[in-house]
Amino acid sequence: MREEAKFFEDFEIGETRTTDARTITETDIVVHAMHSGDWMPHHTDAEWCKTQPFKKPIIHGNATFSITTGLCLQGEPLNPHGMSYGYDKIRFPVPVFAGDTIKVNVTIIEKKDHPKKSTHGLITEEKVTTNQKGEVVLVAHHVLFVEKRNP
Amino acid sequence: MREEAKFFEDFEIGETRTTDARTITETDIVVHAMHSGDWMPHHTDAEWCKTQPFKKPIIHGNATFSITTGLCLQGEPLNPHGMSYGYDKIRFPVPVFAGDTIKVNVTIIEKKDHPKKSTHGLITEEKVTTNQKGEVVLVAHHVLFVEKRNP
Amino acid sequence: MREEAKFFEDFEIGETRTTDARTITETDIVVHAMHSGDWMPHHTDAEWCKTQPFKKPIIHGNATFSITTGLCLQGEPLNPHGMSYGYDKIRFPVPVFAGDTIKVNVTIIEKKDHPKKSTHGLITEEKVTTNQKGEVVLVAHHVLFVEKRNP
Amino acid sequence: MREEAKFFEDFEIGETRTTDARTITETDIVVHAMHSGDWMPHHTDAEWCKTQPFKKPIIHGNATFSITTGLCLQGEPLNPHGMSYGYDKIRFPVPVFAGDTIKVNVTIIEKKDHPKKSTHGLITEEKVTTNQKGEVVLVAHHVLFVEKRNP
Amino acid sequence: MREEAKFFEDFEIGETRTTDARTITETDIVVHAMHSGDWMPHHTDAEWCKTQPFKKPIIHGNATFSITTGLCLQGEPLNPHGMSYGYDKIRFPVPVFAGDTIKVNVTIIEKKDHPKKSTHGLITEEKVTTNQKGEVVLVAHHVLFVEKRNP
Amino acid sequence: MREEAKFFEDFEIGETRTTDARTITETDIVVHAMHSGDWMPHHTDAEWCKTQPFKKPIIHGNATFSITTGLCLQGEPLNPHGMSYGYDKIRFPVPVFAGDTIKVNVTIIEKKDHPKKSTHGLITEEKVTTNQKGEVVLVAHHVLFVEKRNP
Repeated sequence: MREEAKFFEDFEIGETRTTDARTITETDIVVHAMHSGDWMPHHTDAEWCKTQPFKKPIIHGNATFSITTGLCLQGEPLNPHGMSYGYDKIRFPVPVFAGDTIKVNVTIIEKKDHPKKSTHGLITEEKVTTNQKGEVVLVAHHVLFVEKRNP
Repeated sequence: MREEAKFFEDFEIGETRTTDARTITETDIVVHAMHSGDWMPHHTDAEWCKTQPFKKPIIHGNATFSITTGLCLQGEPLNPHGMSYGYDKIRFPVPVFAGDTIKVNVTIIEKKDHPKKSTHGLITEEKVTTNQKGEVVLVAHHVLFVEKRNP
Repeated sequence: MREEAKFFEDFEIGETRTTDARTITETDIVVHAMHSGDWMPHHTDAEWCKTQPFKKPIIHGNATFSITTGLCLQGEPLNPHGMSYGYDKIRFPVPVFAGDTIKVNVTIIEKKDHPKKSTHGLITEEKVTTNQKGEVVLVAHHVLFVEKRNP
Repeated sequence: MREEAKFFEDFEIGETRTTDARTITETDIVVHAMHSGDWMPHHTDAEWCKTQPFKKPIIHGNATFSITTGLCLQGEPLNPHGMSYGYDKIRFPVPVFAGDTIKVNVTIIEKKDHPKKSTHGLITEEKVTTNQKGEVVLVAHHVLFVEKRNP
Repeated sequence: MREEAKFFEDFEIGETRTTDARTITETDIVVHAMHSGDWMPHHTDAEWCKTQPFKKPIIHGNATFSITTGLCLQGEPLNPHGMSYGYDKIRFPVPVFAGDTIKVNVTIIEKKDHPKKSTHGLITEEKVTTNQKGEVVLVAHHVLFVEKRNP
Repeated sequence: MREEAKFFEDFEIGETRTTDARTITETDIVVHAMHSGDWMPHHTDAEWCKTQPFKKPIIHGNATFSITTGLCLQGEPLNPHGMSYGYDKIRFPVPVFAGDTIKVNVTIIEKKDHPKKSTHGLITEEKVTTNQKGEVVLVAHHVLFVEKRNP
C-alpha cells in the first residue's frame, strides 16, 4: 500500500479535492438491499413508489454514503498517522435514482485538539456528494483522529 | 407494505427493542469492498493486517453501519408519518472481524421540536451494535423527522 | 432471534397473512443465473426470447420460489417447535418479468398426524405469489413438521 | 442454444445421468441469504447454531435446490418439445454445510398422460442430490410437460 | 466431473464449435467493475460516456473475455491430458453494450511441438465472440498444453 | 474523471510502478465462477482438487487477470491520448489460492510505430503479478494504442 505521511499540522482548513464520478444503477440498489437486508418499499417496491412524490425507486441513503466513501478513497494513499474516528453528521437532502451520476467534493472544515489525548487532534472533512445536475444529494462530516508531529 | 401509524407524540424516551443477530463473514467484507470500491488494506490486504495491532482483516465500518440498519428494519412496519432525517453521530469503537455475530439495540433517546416546521418534530434513536462478547462495535444516532398529531 | 412458540394444536386451517411486496429486477435474473448456474435462454438470451411467445427474458421459477420464501420470513419469529419438512407441490402458472412486483399470501390449508411419529404433526401452508396485476405466478405447498403440545 | 428434440415417447423410465459436482461455500450461504432475504438463524447466526444439534450454519434448502437445478442444466441441450411443469415433492433429509461437495443423479421415474391435453404427457424426473459422503441431501420430483410425437 | 480423453494427436486443425448465447446486462457491467475494481468512466460514468463516440457505457473487455471463457466451458468435459497454457493474443475490435447478446465460435488453428518438452504439444484454439449483428467483439488465441499419446 | 495527457513520446522504456495489494478470498473464486459461468473442478470442486497436485481449489486465471487490471487502474488518471489495444501474451505460471495476497508491477517494455496509422504508436506494458512469497503468478503484455504528439 502506498503511504503518505500527513500529521495533524499538515492539514489546512479549506483544502479541497474532487473525486471521480460513478453512475448509480438499478444493480446498485438491489446489491445494497441484498447486502444490508433493507428492503423498504422506497427502494424495492416500484408499485408503492408510484404512489409517492418521488414516483420511482430511490437508492438507500446508506448506499450513497458507502459509495461516497469508496469514491473518496480511490487512489488515495494510506496515512499512517491518521485513522477514522467516526461521523458527526450525515444528511440526504435529495434522493438519488438509478441513472444519476454522482461525485464527491471533500474539504477540510475543522481542526481541533482531542479532548483527552494531547498527542492527537481531530480533523473534520466535509464530503459533499452531488448528482449530474449539481444538486447536493449527501453531506457527511467525517472526523479523522490524527497524530501530531509536535504534540 | 404493512403500515403502522406512529406520530411524534407516540414516541417515548426510553422505548427500546433488540434485533435479530447476524454473523459477519469474509463474504460480507468482500461484498462491501466490491460495492463501495473501498479496498483499503485494513479490509482486504491480509499481509498488511498482520503488521497491525488487529492482525487480521476487519470489516468496513460502513458495512457494519449498513447491516445495522438492515437488522433494525427486518419485520418493522412502515410509519407513514415519519422519515429518516439523517445521522448526528456514528462511532466504531471496536473492530468487527469475520466470524463475529452482531445484533442491535435501538432506544429512543431524544425528542425535540423541529426548528422551523411546527408541524413536525425530530426523534433521535440510538442504535448500539454489539458483538457476541457484548462489546459495543458501533453507535449511531439516527434522527427521524416525524409528523405531530396535534401540531 | 425473536421466538414465538406455536404447537401443532395452535395452527388453524384458514389462518392467513400477506407479505410485503418486492419488485423483480433484471439484476435478480442475473444474480439467480449466476448463483444457480442456470443460463437457459428463457432467462439470459434476449434474442432467443424474441422468438418465443413471452418475447423477453423471464426470471427463473426457482428464483421466484426463493424470493417467495424470503418474503414470507421477513419479520417472522422463529418457532422452536416447528421445522420445514419439505414441499409437496410447486407450480409456476404465469411468467415473471423484470419490473413485476410480487407479494405472497400464506394460508394454512391442511393439518394431519405424522404417519410415524405420534409426537408431531404435519401442517401444510399454501404460498400463493401474485404480481401487480393480481395474477398468480407461483403456488407452493410448504409442509411443516410441528411438535404437539399434547401428543 | 443447442437444441435436441425429445418427444414424450422418447423418454424411458429408468434413464439416468449424473451431473458434475460443486462445493458449497460460505459465500453460497451468504449469497442465497442476500438474494432471497432469508436470514433465519440456521444459516447466518453462528452463535445460535452452536446451541443446535447441527452446531454450525447450514445452507438454505432452497439454495441447494437452485444449485441442484443449475447442475442438472450444465451442458444440457434445450428440448423444444418440453417445458417445466413444476415440482411434486421436495425433501431435505440431511443438512448441507459449507465445505460439502454435492452432485445430482437424475432418473426418469414416471410417465403419464396429461389429464386434459391429449397432445402432451407428464414426465417425472427424480433429482437426488448427494454430498461427498454419499448421503442424500435433497430429493426433488420435477415434472416436465412434454409434447407427444403421435398424440 | 465428466472426462473425455483427448491427446495432442486427436486435435485437428479446423475443428470448430459454437457456444450458447448470453445477453450482456447492466448488471454484468457493474458486477465486473465491483469484482475487478476497474471503475474507468467508459464503463460506469454515463455522463462522461455521453461525450464519447460510443455515447453510453460499454462493458469491460476483460468481462467479455471472462464470459467468453465461461460460454466455451458450458457442458464441456474435462480433458485429463490437457491444461491451459495461456493466451497469445486478445483483441476487442467492437464495444459491447448492455443488451447485446454474444456467443463464441471456437476453432483449432494451430498445432505445434512444445519447444522443450517432447511429451507435449501446444494447441491454439481461436475464440471469436460475436454480437447479435454478427460483429466480432473479441478475438482470443488460447493455447493449450496437451500430452501426446505417442511422444 | 481526472485526466493526465501522455503522448506516445512521453512513455519511456523501463518506466515502472507497483500497485497496492489485495488478498484473494474464497468469495473471489465463487464470484468469478458465478459471473463467468466457469465451474471447472479446479476452482469449485474441492473433492476433485484433493486428487490433484495442487490439493485445493485455485482461482481462475481470468479472475487473477481481471483483478490485476483493476489493481493497475486504482487511482490512475485517464489518458485522453491512449486506449487499450489488446493483449499479446498472458501466462499463469503459479496457481493462486484463497488467502494469497497479490500485487502487480507494471513496466513499459516496448514502443513501436503502428503498422498502418502514422499518427499513433503501440506501447507494451508488462504486468507481472506476484503473491506474498514473491512468486510470479501472472504475466500479461498489455498493448496501448497511443497518439503521437508529433506524428
